Amino acid sequence: MSSTAGQVIKCRAAVSWEAGKPLVIEEVEVAPPQAGEVRLKILFTSLCHTDVYFWEAKGQTPVFPRIFGHEAGGIVESVGEGVTHLKPGDHALPVFTGECGECPHCKSEESNMCDLLRINTDRGVMIGDGKSRFSKDGKPIYHFLGTSTFSQYTVVHAGCVAKIDPAAPLDKVCVLSCGICTGFGATVNVAKPKPGSSVAVFGLGAVGLAAAEGARVSGASRIIGVDLVSSRFELAKKFGVNEFVNPKDHDKPVQEVIAEMTNGGVDRAVECTGSIQAMVSAFECVHDGWGVAVLVGVPSKDDAFKTHPVNFLNERTLKGTFYGNYKPRSDLPSVVEMYMKGELELEKFISHSVPFAEINKAFDLLLKGESIRCIIRMED
Amino acid sequence: MSSTAGQVIKCRAAVSWEAGKPLVIEEVEVAPPQAGEVRLKILFTSLCHTDVYFWEAKGQTPVFPRIFGHEAGGIVESVGEGVTHLKPGDHALPVFTGECGECPHCKSEESNMCDLLRINTDRGVMIGDGKSRFSKDGKPIYHFLGTSTFSQYTVVHAGCVAKIDPAAPLDKVCVLSCGICTGFGATVNVAKPKPGSSVAVFGLGAVGLAAAEGARVSGASRIIGVDLVSSRFELAKKFGVNEFVNPKDHDKPVQEVIAEMTNGGVDRAVECTGSIQAMVSAFECVHDGWGVAVLVGVPSKDDAFKTHPVNFLNERTLKGTFYGNYKPRSDLPSVVEMYMKGELELEKFISHSVPFAEINKAFDLLLKGESIRCIIRMED
Ligand SMILES: NC(=O)c1ccc[n+]([C@@H]2O[C@H](COP(=O)([O-])OP(=O)(O)OC[C@H]3O[C@@H](n4cnc5c(N)ncnc54)[C@H](O)[C@@H]3O)[C@@H](O)[C@H]2O)c1
Ligand SMILES: NC(=O)c1ccc[n+]([C@@H]2O[C@H](COP(=O)([O-])OP(=O)(O)OC[C@H]3O[C@@H](n4cnc5c(N)ncnc54)[C@H](O)[C@@H]3O)[C@@H](O)[C@H]2O)c1
Ligand SMILES: [Zn+2]
Ligand SMILES: [Zn+2]
Ligand SMILES: [Zn+2]
Ligand SMILES: [Zn+2]
Repeated sequence: MSSTAGQVIKCRAAVSWEAGKPLVIEEVEVAPPQAGEVRLKILFTSLCHTDVYFWEAKGQTPVFPRIFGHEAGGIVESVGEGVTHLKPGDHALPVFTGECGECPHCKSEESNMCDLLRINTDRGVMIGDGKSRFSKDGKPIYHFLGTSTFSQYTVVHAGCVAKIDPAAPLDKVCVLSCGICTGFGATVNVAKPKPGSSVAVFGLGAVGLAAAEGARVSGASRIIGVDLVSSRFELAKKFGVNEFVNPKDHDKPVQEVIAEMTNGGVDRAVECTGSIQAMVSAFECVHDGWGVAVLVGVPSKDDAFKTHPVNFLNERTLKGTFYGNYKPRSDLPSVVEMYMKGELELEKFISHSVPFAEINKAFDLLLKGESIRCIIRMED
Repeated sequence: MSSTAGQVIKCRAAVSWEAGKPLVIEEVEVAPPQAGEVRLKILFTSLCHTDVYFWEAKGQTPVFPRIFGHEAGGIVESVGEGVTHLKPGDHALPVFTGECGECPHCKSEESNMCDLLRINTDRGVMIGDGKSRFSKDGKPIYHFLGTSTFSQYTVVHAGCVAKIDPAAPLDKVCVLSCGICTGFGATVNVAKPKPGSSVAVFGLGAVGLAAAEGARVSGASRIIGVDLVSSRFELAKKFGVNEFVNPKDHDKPVQEVIAEMTNGGVDRAVECTGSIQAMVSAFECVHDGWGVAVLVGVPSKDDAFKTHPVNFLNERTLKGTFYGNYKPRSDLPSVVEMYMKGELELEKFISHSVPFAEINKAFDLLLKGESIRCIIRMED
């Protein structure tokens, strides 16, 4: 038992008081975990676009004051009643989606969309009692994605916490909490390219680069990157991308360009842009007979996916994935093992690192498109 | 060697001289098979909607005079040069699509869309020399789907002929040449429902009934039939359909009705209508996390499949199939075996039977919606 168990912990957190305004490092109070919850000491966290979108709150419901952050690695400080799979001292990754273990999705081998712990971007409180565990001067500060990792301590539903190998460096594996697993899993768990096959990856942000890494690890021989920004190609080479297409360089639709390059279409396509045009192109550029396209990007509310049904009848498959189809608790330990064995390379995703006090710099870097992942060192 | 090998054969054929006009039984001449071709003696043939569509030639290119027919069973009379997998006397099913054995599709385990022998509804001649093997008074009569089984003898590309167990009754297994395999394969090869699962079948024509039969054989426990004609339910019960929904009986979209009936959606849906509304409904009625929908129906040229991409991101899969993903030569023998072992029931698909001379009655029955399959006895 740690001496802090059952006590309120005072620590530093980066509080977002207002949409779009720089975060402020504050001393906050973190209540002890309730039944089914875990309090984690966060050592490293990284910044993802989703944090930025909800911080900007342009298309989203504004929920403030809030503590953002959902990619992180930490150590269990204490656990609430009934938590059996975690104990103080365990190394762990919190995840924005979870695994209750009881619902039809958790019981299905195919789905990771837990009915209870599925992502909910608008909720700012814990599921158990509808309250926040964070406060300052007696006033609540809201949670984000059930993780709120921009705090030195945070409380998370135990179903959203994966216990991992304590030998794994948390400043590297913390990036597995969101984008990297999403893209990597989209390829290896859903698209499943065979060795020697061709894969098109639409969008070469962190998620798309991880999808390319999945294609590289799967032994795909042609990995075609597609992005509107040609400078992304140079960077993407490190992730196995060996051909590049910028839709802007062509008069015809990019799916036709790719079909011509590949004698009828690629074996697999993974869309990591959020653009509806890219979604349609990714589907239509796969080969008839066996092609599989996987959607990953989050579209706008009013988007409609539109194609001629004959594209399906000609034996193309279209799927989508959420968090790369990984079940956080069941599957993350083995992804960490892949990294430990050198099969999956994480270092190349980490372009920057800043001390906690400079967290706003991580926002600047991401907004300028300069970083893939910026690690925020919570203890520095 | 049969005494007719290498000779022109005179026999009876039902010739369609003009779009929509009754077929006329004529004496025609059937040239010997050329390299890579097979001449078959057709014993039984059955009528499918596709024959009717091209005979009516309303939306299709008119190619006349023509001999229709593409579901049939017969015996090899003689083979052309280079044909090694068939010999005179073999029992065989001709199929409207084929297996050249050489192209990327034939070499892929997943595809049956042979580049060479894939369906071509407009072609009225043999692939080898661009000529017809049928003539009357020296004038050519065109082929249909490379099969033209409304003739006592026909010439077919050897890649489109499946050799089957000679013990199998040809008056039953002839229906496997098209619709029944299409629906059955859509379920067992593509949708692949698990025992105890729920399956929605849209459209309860011959193809949909075969899809339901596939669900029954797979051990699905809930088989929900969906059709605009409620009287189809009674018939469909024989094929395992145990619940029925008529979209016309409801104010809300049928996908919502089905989601409510099934606590979130069916495990699998198979669309066998050709209606674009039914295609969208079939996709949207499958459960998130694991649901798979399969399109089978042939849509209109201008149809667009339209749905919100989030329906994919929530881990639904959409596929389409052509001829139930069966490779004619490789796979049909085992489907015939399923029938021989009593696993797949074919008798219940056969609602009528007429002698060749009454072939126009088979058209009437299908047009009136009275028959599922009407067998035409070529020797009677
Ligand atoms: N499904 C999930 O579980 C999940 C999880 C995390 C992120 N995402 C989504 O994945 C997507 C990618 O995330 P990211 O962090 O890598 O984003 P990002 O903005 O860093 O990268 C997106 C890339 O796509 C490119 N792009 C945009 N439109 C394009 C088009 N029409 N054609 C080709 N390229 C185009 C951009 O130039 C950019 O390089 C986002 O939509 C994000 O919301 C989904
Ligand atoms: N993909 C292939 O390889 C292949 C092969 C053969 C047939 N087909 C296609 O399969 C489809 C079915 O063939 P069939 O011979 O069984 O046709 P059919 O006309 O006998 O049956 C279709 C059924 O669908 C019903 N229906 C129509 N619109 C509907 C809707 N919106 N909702 C629910 N039910 C609806 C009709 O009432 C009818 O009972 C056709 O489109 C045909 O062209 C495809
Ligand atoms: Zn669950
Ligand atoms: Zn994220
Ligand atoms: Zn072929
Ligand atoms: Zn047919």
